[in-house]
Amino acid sequence: MASRDRFAINTISNNSLALGDAIALYCRHGVRAITPWDDKVAELGLAETKRRLDDAGIALNGFCLAGLFAKHGRGNLAVALDHNRRVLDLAAALGAPMIVTCVGGLIAGERDLDYARRYAFEGMQALVEAARPYGITLGIEPLHPMYLPEWSVVTTIAEANDWAERLGAGVGIVVDTYHTWWDPALAEGIRRAGAAGRIAAVHVNDWLSPTSDVLLDRGMMGEGVIDIPKIRGWLDDAGFAGRLEVEIFSTRLWAADQDAYLAETLQRFEEHV
Amino acid sequence: MASRDRFAINTISNNSLALGDAIALYCRHGVRAITPWDDKVAELGLAETKRRLDDAGIALNGFCLAGLFAKHGRGNLAVALDHNRRVLDLAAALGAPMIVTCVGGLIAGERDLDYARRYAFEGMQALVEAARPYGITLGIEPLHPMYLPEWSVVTTIAEANDWAERLGAGVGIVVDTYHTWWDPALAEGIRRAGAAGRIAAVHVNDWLSPTSDVLLDRGMMGEGVIDIPKIRGWLDDAGFAGRLEVEIFSTRLWAADQDAYLAETLQRFEEHV
Repeated sequence: MASRDRFAINTISNNSLALGDAIALYCRHGVRAITPWDDKVAELGLAETKRRLDDAGIALNGFCLAGLFAKHGRGNLAVALDHNRRVLDLAAALGAPMIVTCVGGLIAGERDLDYARRYAFEGMQALVEAARPYGITLGIEPLHPMYLPEWSVVTTIAEANDWAERLGAGVGIVVDTYHTWWDPALAEGIRRAGAAGRIAAVHVNDWLSPTSDVLLDRGMMGEGVIDIPKIRGWLDDAGFAGRLEVEIFSTRLWAADQDAYLAETLQRFEEHV
Repeated sequence: MASRDRFAINTISNNSLALGDAIALYCRHGVRAITPWDDKVAELGLAETKRRLDDAGIALNGFCLAGLFAKHGRGNLAVALDHNRRVLDLAAALGAPMIVTCVGGLIAGERDLDYARRYAFEGMQALVEAARPYGITLGIEPLHPMYLPEWSVVTTIAEANDWAERLGAGVGIVVDTYHTWWDPALAEGIRRAGAAGRIAAVHVNDWLSPTSDVLLDRGMMGEGVIDIPKIRGWLDDAGFAGRLEVEIFSTRLWAADQDAYLAETLQRFEEHV
């Protein structure tokens, strides 16, 4: 149902490959837009990454990953911001239009969720300032509640909309089917985000039932229980016309033949998105 | 912080024991209230369960488990209701004041979440009728969103409050720290439930970070990242004065020495609830 010209892929979907090999894979299959991760870009080198992307005619749909302010512990927001500035530099050098932003979870060794929310919001305020000169949108991604402790105190699209609204210009949200499909307020949240022109990216993937791992058992579209076309319809109605980015964390799929897996992903994209 | 006279335990916390052995364990440690599961009661026999509970001076805090309407497939609501009536009979015979009710997830092989929500609500309407003559409260338990496909389309305390309100007399909600701690609207939901006299049960336990299993890796209170005393404070403020029931699904703890584990649980109950 989704047209292939709206296809993008997040390189985590092929995490078993080095970035250079992933770019070659995408080139073989005619993929035109990807979202790489900062650690893989650093590994390949910025200049080499740029050269290979240009040679393959591949643009960036986005860049991963900003945020995670709590990771360095209470009182170390400056350390987290330094890391975020390096991510901004890489993203800007590669021409990324947006950066996927996970605001971070609980502060290591602490249980105060209210404080963690304030801490992450304070981090976002500083990051918005830092990002402004680059002209890159920060896309806040609400993560599934099961990722709260380590990754994100923002767990619903309503909260992501609230944060984006309070943070102002330069901030959007990322709608990921895996993270949000359970939410009774999802349709409403997509409408609200669309009306504000705030949908910075969309991730598609599926929830397997039963699921064997909290982190690394996502499915390809159509393998699981998410009604992706329904969510796609809400995105259409909200005016979102950007790329639909496949993002799959899966030890099973990372271990598969990557050409066959990408070919199947492209086919499933047309049938199940 | 919690007084031991408010302690109750769900027998799933000692799932490696047969119900008779679990009752003996609880008796040795002075536990006064438990919540058993229908399959374990059936295994021991209703009369024998009743005799052993009476001999041990143990009352029921609740009974598990009603609901799960989608489990038998679309069009088989009558089968699900027959099973629920048998659960009601057992609970009534043992004098349980309430039954923990998980409304059920997606219909097997289907992806229509809206339909699954309507189907579960229809099941609840029928169950409320069936339960009325028994005078037993049905406590709707909102489950963590990661359990949606198999167990519950109701994933937030706001939804549970809405359902209980629409279903009317005889319906309450169950607040479980593990299922609800991530929810930005939890405090508000507890206030609302308390104001309506609708808190039918409270489950305490902890979220381990990182967690190794979706289903069977809960922690004892204080082992994880949930600020249980803060949630306890909200429950106090909402007027909840009932027992605080420990419910732990954990292969690690089920494999431990059960006397030492229960002794530690009782100590942690006083220190971390």
